[in-house]
Parts: sequence; structure tokens; C-alpha cells
Amino acid sequence: MLKFFYAPNTCALASHIALKHAGAAYEPVRLSFANNQQRSAEYLGVNPKGRVPALVTDKGILTETPAILAWIAQSYPEAGLAPLGDPWGFAQVQSFNAYLCATVHVAHAHRMRGYRWASEESSFADMRRKVPESVGECFRLIEREMLKGPWVMGETFTICDPYLFTLAQWLELDGVSPGDVPRVADHRRRMSELPAVRAAIAIETGQ
Amino acid sequence: MLKFFYAPNTCALASHIALKHAGAAYEPVRLSFANNQQRSAEYLGVNPKGRVPALVTDKGILTETPAILAWIAQSYPEAGLAPLGDPWGFAQVQSFNAYLCATVHVAHAHRMRGYRWASEESSFADMRRKVPESVGECFRLIEREMLKGPWVMGETFTICDPYLFTLAQWLELDGVSPGDVPRVADHRRRMSELPAVRAAIAIETGQ
Repeated sequence: MLKFFYAPNTCALASHIALKHAGAAYEPVRLSFANNQQRSAEYLGVNPKGRVPALVTDKGILTETPAILAWIAQSYPEAGLAPLGDPWGFAQVQSFNAYLCATVHVAHAHRMRGYRWASEESSFADMRRKVPESVGECFRLIEREMLKGPWVMGETFTICDPYLFTLAQWLELDGVSPGDVPRVADHRRRMSELPAVRAAIAIETGQ
Repeated sequence: MLKFFYAPNTCALASHIALKHAGAAYEPVRLSFANNQQRSAEYLGVNPKGRVPALVTDKGILTETPAILAWIAQSYPEAGLAPLGDPWGFAQVQSFNAYLCATVHVAHAHRMRGYRWASEESSFADMRRKVPESVGECFRLIEREMLKGPWVMGETFTICDPYLFTLAQWLELDGVSPGDVPRVADHRRRMSELPAVRAAIAIETGQ
């Protein structure tokens, strides 16, 4: 059985929702970032990067959200989570998820994780001040150019949807008003009502 | 025919090498970052993110290096650039490329593009000072845990190899000594001798 390492309120939620959507059998394993468990020797043996999520399979360990999402889509094709027979459609899915991973999430990370890229308190404060602008710019681009509606890729729900939903959870904390990105906010609301989303969140919040 | 937008000395080189490896017919289109052409209205019509690379196909426009690389691998299967029939192997390729895209390239970008995430000159200077450590940490992890050898995924050359080669081009500028990551340095040297790599670089440098 799969083992899924996550921490609450992280991007791991995207993969967690996809696992639920796919009907995968898995054991969820919670790490506490407050206790720095992601840097423990035991977890570094699972993921030397010290990050979540990590998915332990019978073939080995997989990390990085876009890769885990695509693997879930390919491993549970009956769930229809990506256009597997259509390289162009699949590439569009990959492109959207790469943007979330490398641009949107990275912009967000400057609010709390500035120490990855700088050393001075003054720099961290400067980074925090910039987050509403940098994250806001990303979500306005998604609103205007990328989110086709009703789902990210149009009529069909894909692995892009749980990932967008996950990062959109942080809008208010990042200082971006959901009212500025109404289609993203509506997508978030509709996502929050889906059984797979509720189930993953219930596990992560221990409810 | 494909149209490939790139700028010299950017991550676009990875996709450019893959196009050459695949034997794709394409028209290369150079953007000058010095003249800020990537922010021109004309190019924003191609890629609203104002970044390179962008690949114009008969189906539409594709952006984001991991997505372009995977699309090339899937569209030119005879080139054997990814384990297409093996979801686990493909996921490992995706995972490596996601790490390059979202962690390694992002760490590097703090040397020159700090304005994306902060506003003060003092922050930019702080970020620049941190780059040898943050980029160095990434490449030491690749050296120790990820690069299987002789190619990234082992015996078979994949779309991971041009991407690693491209980011490893910047080691010295990022303050990381190639001597600290000898297997990465050896990979870079072997890559630099491949005809597809030479051909892509010759086009980008106008030689």
C-alpha cells in the first residue's frame, strides 16, 4: 500500500486530494513542521530534500507535486485526472502545474521561508511586503489567461484543479483579496464542496 | 513548423537541446533580454508570463521547461528521450525536472532577479551573497542522491540531461566550484561534446 507523507497547510494537500479522487489505497503519515519533523534523520531517509509531500510506493519514493500528480493520473487512469492519450492536452496540464510549482508557490514561500534565499531580517521583512504583489500578479494571470472554467482545463476536472485549490487556500494570508480574482475564488468554493477535497482536508486537520 | 522562442544564457537551452536531439523541424526565434524584448507587447501575446522558452505549435503555445521537455519526448518517441511506457520511470524524470525548475533554477534566480521577490537593494545584495550556499546545496544533493550516472536516470539519456546541463552552465557564476560536484562537472563535460548540444549552442551564440 502507498504511504503518503504530508504536513497540514502545505502543498501536499494537492496530491492528497488527487489520491482521494483516484480512490487510491494509502496510509497518510503526518509530519509536524512545528516540530521540524521534515528535517529529522528518519524523514531525510525518505526525502533527502526535507520537504513534503513524499509518496512511498512499491517501486520507490516519489517527490515533487507535479510528478506525484501526474503519476497518480497515469496510475489510476479510470479516474480520468489527465488527458493521458493526448500529448498536447497532457502538456498543457504539465505547463499549468509547473507554473504553480515554480512561480506561484515560490512567490508565496517568500512570506515564511525567506531564509532559503537570504540571511538578514531586513530582507525577510522586505520579501514579506512584496508577497501581496508577487502572488497577486500570479493569480491575476491565472484568472485572466489560464483558468478556462469551470475547471482549470475547461469542462474536464484534472490534476490541475486540486493544485490550484491548494495554493488558493493561501490567498488571504498572502494579502491577496479573493474579490480581485473572482473566478479563482469561485473555483476554490466549488472545489471545497467536493467529497475528495473534504475527505483529504478532514484527514489533514484530524477531524 | 514549430517556432521556438529563446534567449541566450537562459534555461531555454534545455528545450533547445531536446529539440535538436529529437530531430525536430523548428524555427528558432531569439529574444534579447538586454533589450527587454521578453516584456514587449508582441511577445506577451505569445507568452503572457514574459519568460522564455515558449514553443509555438500547430495546436497552440506551450510554456514551462518541464512541460516542453515532456512534450518533445512524447511527440518524438523515436528519440527515446523519456520512458514513455513506464509511468514510474516517467514520474522519476518529472520529479527530477520539477526539482530543477522549482528549486535549483529558483535559487539561481536570486542572484540576478531578486526584484521578483523583494524591493530593496540591501535585500538584493543579501540574496546574491546567499546564492553560492543555496545553489551549492542543490547541486551537492544532485551529486549525492540524484545523478545516477552516466546519465541522470542511469544508462539511458533522457530529457533530464539537457536540463541539468543547462543549469550546470551557471555553476561558476553562482559561486559554486565544479570541483565540489565532480560527477555533475563530468556530466557537463560529456554533455558539451554531444552534437545536439553543440548545435543548439551554436545557434544561440550565433556561431
